[in-house]
Amino acid sequence: MTGVAQADQLDTALREEVHAAARRARAAATALAVVPRGDKDRALHAMADALLDRADEVLAANERDLAAGRDAGLTKALLDRLALSTERVATVADGLRVVAGLPDPVGEVVRGGVLANGLELRQVRVPLGVVGIVYEARPNVTVDAAGLAVKAGNAVLLRGSSSARHSNRALVEVLRAALSAAGLPADAVQLLPSEDRASVRHLITARGLVDVVLPRGGAGLIDAVVREATVPTIETGVGNCHVYVDADADLDAALRIVLNAKTRRPSVCNAAETVLVHAAVAAGFVPRLVGALHDAGVTVHGDGAFVELGGDDVVAATGADWETEYLSLDIAAAVVDSLDAAVAHIAEHGSGHTEAIVTGSLAAAREFTARVDAAAVMVNASTAFTDGGEFGMGAELGISTQKLHARGPMGLPELTSTKWIVWGDGHTRS
Amino acid sequence: MTGVAQADQLDTALREEVHAAARRARAAATALAVVPRGDKDRALHAMADALLDRADEVLAANERDLAAGRDAGLTKALLDRLALSTERVATVADGLRVVAGLPDPVGEVVRGGVLANGLELRQVRVPLGVVGIVYEARPNVTVDAAGLAVKAGNAVLLRGSSSARHSNRALVEVLRAALSAAGLPADAVQLLPSEDRASVRHLITARGLVDVVLPRGGAGLIDAVVREATVPTIETGVGNCHVYVDADADLDAALRIVLNAKTRRPSVCNAAETVLVHAAVAAGFVPRLVGALHDAGVTVHGDGAFVELGGDDVVAATGADWETEYLSLDIAAAVVDSLDAAVAHIAEHGSGHTEAIVTGSLAAAREFTARVDAAAVMVNASTAFTDGGEFGMGAELGISTQKLHARGPMGLPELTSTKWIVWGDGHTRS
Repeated sequence: MTGVAQADQLDTALREEVHAAARRARAAATALAVVPRGDKDRALHAMADALLDRADEVLAANERDLAAGRDAGLTKALLDRLALSTERVATVADGLRVVAGLPDPVGEVVRGGVLANGLELRQVRVPLGVVGIVYEARPNVTVDAAGLAVKAGNAVLLRGSSSARHSNRALVEVLRAALSAAGLPADAVQLLPSEDRASVRHLITARGLVDVVLPRGGAGLIDAVVREATVPTIETGVGNCHVYVDADADLDAALRIVLNAKTRRPSVCNAAETVLVHAAVAAGFVPRLVGALHDAGVTVHGDGAFVELGGDDVVAATGADWETEYLSLDIAAAVVDSLDAAVAHIAEHGSGHTEAIVTGSLAAAREFTARVDAAAVMVNASTAFTDGGEFGMGAELGISTQKLHARGPMGLPELTSTKWIVWGDGHTRS
Repeated sequence: MTGVAQADQLDTALREEVHAAARRARAAATALAVVPRGDKDRALHAMADALLDRADEVLAANERDLAAGRDAGLTKALLDRLALSTERVATVADGLRVVAGLPDPVGEVVRGGVLANGLELRQVRVPLGVVGIVYEARPNVTVDAAGLAVKAGNAVLLRGSSSARHSNRALVEVLRAALSAAGLPADAVQLLPSEDRASVRHLITARGLVDVVLPRGGAGLIDAVVREATVPTIETGVGNCHVYVDADADLDAALRIVLNAKTRRPSVCNAAETVLVHAAVAAGFVPRLVGALHDAGVTVHGDGAFVELGGDDVVAATGADWETEYLSLDIAAAVVDSLDAAVAHIAEHGSGHTEAIVTGSLAAAREFTARVDAAAVMVNASTAFTDGGEFGMGAELGISTQKLHARGPMGLPELTSTKWIVWGDGHTRS
């Protein structure tokens, strides 16, 4: 057999493996869709208990991934994302208990009423069905995603990173055993092979077998998914977030908010990447802001006005800076002449994730929140608050930056669809 | 220049034409997003008035399409779909007034509350932005789509059928003039070129320029869109709908419902294509049902039990019959041993559009509505009721059979996204 023919045969076998998992997931999802809340919550607690009971197995598997990662020369940051510990296992187990405590989205009546002809209409939430998730190093996502999926009555196909494959395999084995013991179908949680990138392709093209795929990852993954997917997908992630300091801002609050939004966790998507300062307050505020950012270790990439006002601590920005999601201790900075100019800058360069205004003016706050088109718009608050946990959703499955189906943090309701239920009395339509 | 190079150049020019329209649409959508309801409703009434005032122009343009259609040998049914008349123009104008009377979805607070830290959260409806619609012959869709899009604060790119191009051009010219006169941006309603199929491709790949595309049409269009689109899309349309007559059915109601669901308008997606009869009532009911369907001109494609009970009026069904959306006076028919078997049959062959049960048993009704996975599930009512107008949504933009974003009839709320608005007081995250 030629190398090409052999590769084709392996690819066909991999596709069949993904499709077989999806068919098992469909059967599990069909059963899970009608399981009452109490049984699902008991299973979530059983999953949490099992993680604690079998933490040693999970940590041993994680150690294998870490050793392989060190051999492969993974960065310290990546190794940290990959690492589990007794504490981290306890945290993800607690996450499952939080999800158990959240209301069941399934069955919620979204709209309803009685028509003129007497038909009774209810639009109720139902599970999406079979949900695929493609994600990177962190093995805690495996548990979060499984917990949210099960609570919302879905079966989940997990396609984690190959660097976390031993950890994910151990976690999924524990979760599946707990599901079975609790009387729910183990196939509601399945791990897809991660050794070959092609398993992603087979997942996102399994139309009819998979209802929706959530890609969580960098721009490369998202682009590949958008190009190749035939299954509906929800785009997550890129955050080129702005903080606009208005002419009427409380400047102490503005300083705190910019510093928090930039430095709290620079590597996450809700971190601020650009600060815009109204010209009316620039002369006094820019030097102070630049000094504080410099003290916090942040490199400021400023426009002409920022360079002029901020002095040597400001690096001259290039056009690329306005587009960049640094995910590091860097921030782009510009002076704008008006709220209009700030809104226009954000419309041109923002990624539709989170945008903030700092102002004491009610008119400015209303104008900014009405005109800025993003998943979240903050008034006098840090961009860092855009987060499922902060918004009271329990865990989250990522932050959607698309407009269809889900926008912003995705929790339980975002993992559901709806169904119209109509009760009549022999009604026919004229 | 070679023929290929010339074709490439034309394709590039067409793409640029579609993209330029999308950029104008974006500017219009940005303006329209913050227009208050009163101004939008006045514009909708102005559009309706203009259609009546300039009906002669529209009808003259429609006559050109009809003449071309007759020359091209279009079927009588297609010519009827294409035809406008004074009455039909008045009906679409009335549709605009109905939409004006509906609540504005924009600004509706979907969820909200105050977090423990004092942050005030509201999730509000916002327009989707730039919406593309690909549709077939009927020119009334042009007006319905424009009206719904404008009311929900969107700009719309209309890609109608080339067979209706003169009618659509006249309608869009009238609507744009009315929008301008009412002080709203005319570019909120634009017609894309329809002479070349490639304009569909350019629309569904205009990622970043177009927020969502709704393909309304046959399986061929839907498949092409699913394969090639990089813009998010909402699938509409295929309806392989079932009526299940339960053991506890009121058989008079069952007869009325099956006849209504099959014969009221056989060509629409909510028409019934299969009837399933519980074995316990088959002996008495099947002959009666077959007789009534035969009298109504319907050909029954039955399984073995139907052939046995229904006699010469039943044609033996093949495997393909269970999958077929006839859209004609044909119906597939089978006897099933239980509600379970009916649910399994629907899960295997249904298209997730509308499924109905006829029963007097509360347990059967609850079981069927819980377990059948479809956009709409009817109890003792005809499948024909799945319709935006019947559901009180005013006009509709098609019936979604996908689970993401919109499921069932799509009205104004389905043409919106949401935005989280968060008010703080200098809040930073720890």
